[in-house]
Amino acid sequence: MVVELISVGTEILMGNIVNTNAAYLSEKCVELGLFVYQEVTIGDNEERLKEAILTALSRSDIVILTGGLGPTKDDLTKETVAKIVEKELVIDNSIKQKIKDYFENNKTYPIISENNWKQANVIKGAKILENNNGTAPGLIVKTKEKKRIILLPGPPGEMVPMFEEKVFPYLKELQPTIFYSKMVKVCGIGESMAETMLSDLIEKQTNPTIAPYAKTGEVHFRVTASANSIKEAKELVKPVVTKMIRQLKGNVYTTEEKETLEENVVNLLKKYNLTLATAESCTGGLFAARLVNVSGVSDSLKAGYITYSNKAKRRELNVKKSTLDKFGAVSEETAKEMAKGAAKQAKTDIAISITGIAGPDGGTKEKPVGLIYIGCYIKGKVKVKELHLKGNRQKIRENTVVCALDLLRRCIISNYI
Amino acid sequence: MVVELISVGTEILMGNIVNTNAAYLSEKCVELGLFVYQEVTIGDNEERLKEAILTALSRSDIVILTGGLGPTKDDLTKETVAKIVEKELVIDNSIKQKIKDYFENNKTYPIISENNWKQANVIKGAKILENNNGTAPGLIVKTKEKKRIILLPGPPGEMVPMFEEKVFPYLKELQPTIFYSKMVKVCGIGESMAETMLSDLIEKQTNPTIAPYAKTGEVHFRVTASANSIKEAKELVKPVVTKMIRQLKGNVYTTEEKETLEENVVNLLKKYNLTLATAESCTGGLFAARLVNVSGVSDSLKAGYITYSNKAKRRELNVKKSTLDKFGAVSEETAKEMAKGAAKQAKTDIAISITGIAGPDGGTKEKPVGLIYIGCYIKGKVKVKELHLKGNRQKIRENTVVCALDLLRRCIISNYI
Repeated sequence: MVVELISVGTEILMGNIVNTNAAYLSEKCVELGLFVYQEVTIGDNEERLKEAILTALSRSDIVILTGGLGPTKDDLTKETVAKIVEKELVIDNSIKQKIKDYFENNKTYPIISENNWKQANVIKGAKILENNNGTAPGLIVKTKEKKRIILLPGPPGEMVPMFEEKVFPYLKELQPTIFYSKMVKVCGIGESMAETMLSDLIEKQTNPTIAPYAKTGEVHFRVTASANSIKEAKELVKPVVTKMIRQLKGNVYTTEEKETLEENVVNLLKKYNLTLATAESCTGGLFAARLVNVSGVSDSLKAGYITYSNKAKRRELNVKKSTLDKFGAVSEETAKEMAKGAAKQAKTDIAISITGIAGPDGGTKEKPVGLIYIGCYIKGKVKVKELHLKGNRQKIRENTVVCALDLLRRCIISNYI
Repeated sequence: MVVELISVGTEILMGNIVNTNAAYLSEKCVELGLFVYQEVTIGDNEERLKEAILTALSRSDIVILTGGLGPTKDDLTKETVAKIVEKELVIDNSIKQKIKDYFENNKTYPIISENNWKQANVIKGAKILENNNGTAPGLIVKTKEKKRIILLPGPPGEMVPMFEEKVFPYLKELQPTIFYSKMVKVCGIGESMAETMLSDLIEKQTNPTIAPYAKTGEVHFRVTASANSIKEAKELVKPVVTKMIRQLKGNVYTTEEKETLEENVVNLLKKYNLTLATAESCTGGLFAARLVNVSGVSDSLKAGYITYSNKAKRRELNVKKSTLDKFGAVSEETAKEMAKGAAKQAKTDIAISITGIAGPDGGTKEKPVGLIYIGCYIKGKVKVKELHLKGNRQKIRENTVVCALDLLRRCIISNYI
């Protein structure tokens, strides 16, 4: 089945917001085994929107629209689709009640304006998708030609849960074939290296397919099989994933769709009852902040030190003046002392240290921008890794954080498992 | 003049990457006074790409294509456009030489494959846009109907500098009218509040126009005037910006297009020769990391403490046990002691402290998820702000960081200016 995505909103055409909805829905369609050949963005203009929907219907089975369901006059998606399917808009009383409740519970904006009732209008005969995170319901409408138009709200905080809970199962039901996929998440090696290690599997892929997704410092491979039953699809995926893990050696950190790298690391810390301290220079707290993405990290992360200046490295982490003078702040030796000092000060089992030159200033011929040392104090020893990263300041710092998470992961595994 | 954007690449349709190019180009078109009515994304498929380009040409003056200029067989943009304008592809020797040089200087991948020479092909008669960050040159082609097709590489790291340096001035030249714009950047109040404060100006806007851009915790207003000369356009913009600053009271932090909130804060610290320490709980280093976005912050940011646990709050920041017992870790009192303790330990003029409940766990009826206290120690006193934020863990933490930057900015201004 072919799907076309239409994003509605002048704010997208003006570049006011980045269209993350399209990327999210595209990935979900791949997961469902649906084909997306085109994506279109249209402003809040009825004529152009109508033309875009009609064109999309002419070349696909399902059209998914996001945006334009708001309360203002600009919001035209529902009205335009109603005209296309030749159905009238009718008030839905349960939605009207929900809107009333929503505003009564909202302390910041408790006043309902006349406009808001517009959101209780639905296309006659449409399947209504309740919105648990806002006031605009989603709708699924069938055309005379048995094609589907799915209308979803624009804000990702409303659209994503609605899609997950209601649209995903609906589309899965429509698919005659069963699709099943697993994610193989890799860090510590680049995309091209990972693909080379899997080249035999990627070349001969048919069912399951293997699709790479490059993330900052990581590569995720989605392995998707189609079959007549979920059991059969799982049986197709399993041996391929096993082979991939073997061929990628220690570089796979999880095969769980929803587990992030920082969750994986925090889970390892918790599993072995380990405490951690951090000592950061050029990343300035980004590494610790990434760990604090994980709710409940407080059992493991005891303290973090941001020691951007040499003075702070000495005062907080007890880095020797002679070390800084002889080797400089960006050196293996300083990284070692930072990690040791952090573990000692915070009384933890493990400490991660990061020192480097993120640029754009501060680079020299001997120590260019992108030179980073990360240290991991564990069981009385410090393992140091030297990195040579490319990109702007932000990119270098983000990649450093991923490398430090990876170093921590590997150090726990090799020392405790 | 009407512009249509076409993003080319199956990786976008599969959701492997988020299309940030479209948002960037859209915003630039607004800045240039060009109208964008549609944006289309197409996979690496010649037939569909051709159709999309022809449709775009039928309804616009300029078509900007990004992506599909790479070395592989999948990359079809140049070939497809050549067919449309009925021109042949010819080798450009200077580009060929550049590709040779590029690979010779690249230590990671020094080998040129046969494919790479494909990138030296250009459409006969096209204006060539040199690529200083990669091997694929950009091209500008005129059709028989005097419409323009602009081909740009897909990676943002190549596309953005090429657009800034070459395409922006080219398009500006094409525009018969002069456009000039200023950015008014606001923080500390929400979008609707800011718009209310400017409602009279927004309602009667004609020339200049006022367009709001919502960012996390900030609102940016682009004020754009069109005129026959740059002088005239500037004269139209100036009084409106002055009025906006007055009406928005102390909530405007800059009118410089490129100045970020953290740069603004770091510039204030530097200007008044002030040193800073940070003490973070729920943000876990995100506040300090945001300051470290600014290269050269080391003169001002002396040290940062991530004290997620109560023990760390006591050990690193000297928060009293009795304070934690009586008022809890998330309280005005703890925020005060954290800020004082950080300034004392790091011997700085100012310290920012952050403590709160970012969720999803840890909330109670008295202290719900989203309750945050930020403290600013300055001139011996601590100013504390209580926040009630909504959203998921990530959103709450990002908004907290913006509020803390804003508090710091306001405290410096009221104490030192």
